[in-house]
Amino acid sequence: MKKIEGGVCAPKGFKASGIYAGIRKNKTKKDLALIYSEVLASAASVYTTNLVYGAPITVTKNNLENNIAQAIICNSGNANTCNANGVEIALKTCELLANSLKINKNDIIIASTGVIGQQMNIEPFEKGMDALVASLKSDGSDEASEAIMTTDLVKKEIAFEFEIDGKICHIGGIAKGSGMIHPNMATMLAFVTTDVNIEPSLLQELLSEDVVDTFNMISVDGDTSTNDMLSILANGLALNEKITTKNDAYYAFKEALNAVTLYLSKAIAKDGEGATKLLECHVINAKTKNDAILASKSVICSSLFKAAMFGSDANWGRVLCALGYSKANLDVTKIDVSFKSTKGVLNVCQNGAGIDFSEEHAKVILGEDVIEILIDLKDGNFNATAFGCDLTYEYVKINGDYRS
Amino acid sequence: MKKIEGGVCAPKGFKASGIYAGIRKNKTKKDLALIYSEVLASAASVYTTNLVYGAPITVTKNNLENNIAQAIICNSGNANTCNANGVEIALKTCELLANSLKINKNDIIIASTGVIGQQMNIEPFEKGMDALVASLKSDGSDEASEAIMTTDLVKKEIAFEFEIDGKICHIGGIAKGSGMIHPNMATMLAFVTTDVNIEPSLLQELLSEDVVDTFNMISVDGDTSTNDMLSILANGLALNEKITTKNDAYYAFKEALNAVTLYLSKAIAKDGEGATKLLECHVINAKTKNDAILASKSVICSSLFKAAMFGSDANWGRVLCALGYSKANLDVTKIDVSFKSTKGVLNVCQNGAGIDFSEEHAKVILGEDVIEILIDLKDGNFNATAFGCDLTYEYVKINGDYRS
Repeated sequence: MKKIEGGVCAPKGFKASGIYAGIRKNKTKKDLALIYSEVLASAASVYTTNLVYGAPITVTKNNLENNIAQAIICNSGNANTCNANGVEIALKTCELLANSLKINKNDIIIASTGVIGQQMNIEPFEKGMDALVASLKSDGSDEASEAIMTTDLVKKEIAFEFEIDGKICHIGGIAKGSGMIHPNMATMLAFVTTDVNIEPSLLQELLSEDVVDTFNMISVDGDTSTNDMLSILANGLALNEKITTKNDAYYAFKEALNAVTLYLSKAIAKDGEGATKLLECHVINAKTKNDAILASKSVICSSLFKAAMFGSDANWGRVLCALGYSKANLDVTKIDVSFKSTKGVLNVCQNGAGIDFSEEHAKVILGEDVIEILIDLKDGNFNATAFGCDLTYEYVKINGDYRS
Repeated sequence: MKKIEGGVCAPKGFKASGIYAGIRKNKTKKDLALIYSEVLASAASVYTTNLVYGAPITVTKNNLENNIAQAIICNSGNANTCNANGVEIALKTCELLANSLKINKNDIIIASTGVIGQQMNIEPFEKGMDALVASLKSDGSDEASEAIMTTDLVKKEIAFEFEIDGKICHIGGIAKGSGMIHPNMATMLAFVTTDVNIEPSLLQELLSEDVVDTFNMISVDGDTSTNDMLSILANGLALNEKITTKNDAYYAFKEALNAVTLYLSKAIAKDGEGATKLLECHVINAKTKNDAILASKSVICSSLFKAAMFGSDANWGRVLCALGYSKANLDVTKIDVSFKSTKGVLNVCQNGAGIDFSEEHAKVILGEDVIEILIDLKDGNFNATAFGCDLTYEYVKINGDYRS
């Protein structure tokens, strides 16, 4: 498997585009993205578990009942959530796109991101749809990934090439993250394309399994968004023998999918609103998988620990505190904790009690922009890794007045 | 019932003191507090549910098995948690205090607050104990409340006078809060004294019930501390007929206790680390009490909503988002939301969808330092109120390098 350029356009038969359609006021920022497959594709999607969810999710869930789709449309600038006419707007958008692309309006995945509870107008979609479709191109992934950004600072895009049965296959993905990031079933927004030929139901199963260790393990601020959604289109143009069981081809594809989702998950955590550091919390030797997940997510979500990491302060007591209230089954007297970065490893806690360390060395290690927190529970055989970021002045600034 | 001066020394037979004993480096800040009852008192206590908990909690739980105590000792500057010899230090401290006060070493409630996982020395206690006891005075509540502060900006102290069977009774309390505040069974530290005569077991039942609507409903940062503890001493010197059943006297005392705990809870929320505003989230008409609690606490804990309140931004979509992931059973299409302060009321959401409002008026209402969030779920008959604070640059600053 090798990393390649092209994002969601790297797989055969995919085009993408991104334009400014007038949904947001700021004209210098694109706000409408399109991903299109030349042929119908197997499709799978996972969504937010928030009881309050966007109108586009209602429409997409309905459209994906047959696990087949051909295009993904996504706007930024307005979440189309908590709007009385939200579903109507989303359906109308699908119609406009179907007419312009000459495809079935039910073969569309639709998503929105932006402010919740703000009236949404259909006009920008009516005016912009033909231009959006006309802009489709085989190197358009950059533009699409730009158009779905909100407070993101960097585009999140990745692609890999790999082999199944001697056939060259490709997989690519784009994502947005930044704030309101604490996914539960899917992340804010991530779209993956592949030319692999795979049974739709198996694709859905694979995607649902994959997010457990990737998108569902990241947290920027503990807020599970109303619009979280991760979708994949697999159009089969790599011409591998259709994957219908968990054979070698399935596992090769699983590995490639995981490489894309893990990359995008970490990219979202690192580009969390205001973040200066990526935090990776590795919990090992937990009693169960769930204990490992609870423990690692609890640490990554602690505001106190996140603020300590911003200050490069080796305040490991906050790690123990977060483990203690995590609801994970653990034995406090067995816990070992270390901090690790490219500058080295620092052991700070052994068997639940502090051990001496050099504060100077700690500052050097924690001064880096990727910090690993290594937690050995010495209580079983299950591991999990959660991804997060530090809590900074900038986060507060960005969210003190997001709407203006 | 009327508010009076005197804090924990307002009830008959209580004295208090606070000194600098050398536990913390900063000599300008007191670090050791003592509350003493002239006679043995009924005692009750609730503690953190964090699996990682301080050594003082182990010792206090053991000492309070008979629900009788005579003194409360508490240090700041070191949490005595995750220390290999923590219990030994706490036991030795009780011994030193018992010798100096000439009381039984098992009649002592001991508590600590400060950095977790830092070696604790017995020397400051050995050297300072006699001075601490010698400083006891009947107007010492101020000094005790000062000595338990960490990053608190203001002392939290209250007292009331009330009547039972024609006898004048008193109740007073002090507390500390600030960071790592998301209590689950009790808050960081709060100590209440009363001269009411009440059966110990009934006192414990009353206290455990009371915290459900008071201390357990506040959150500053979602981190449940390792040292949370709320204790009460009732020494009976008001000479009312001993309360042994849920009679009128019981309910009069219950009301007085609730006035103290509610005041201290709100004071802790308002003085949350870096906070500029007290947030009170009132959820009404929920299906069950638990739904009301889940919904109100979820809003108060949302980093995004807290940051919006800091910026006086009426971003009510974040309220809906937090309700949606709260795990409360609710019908999104019924929810009404308003913001309220001394400047007026602003309706922002009706039946789950936005309604027009003046942004200027919103800024005026949200510019105040006490903001009420009114949420009507229109789905049942249960209510709950949660207390929190805004998320500010200062919170990040304070916690970026707490230990230095």
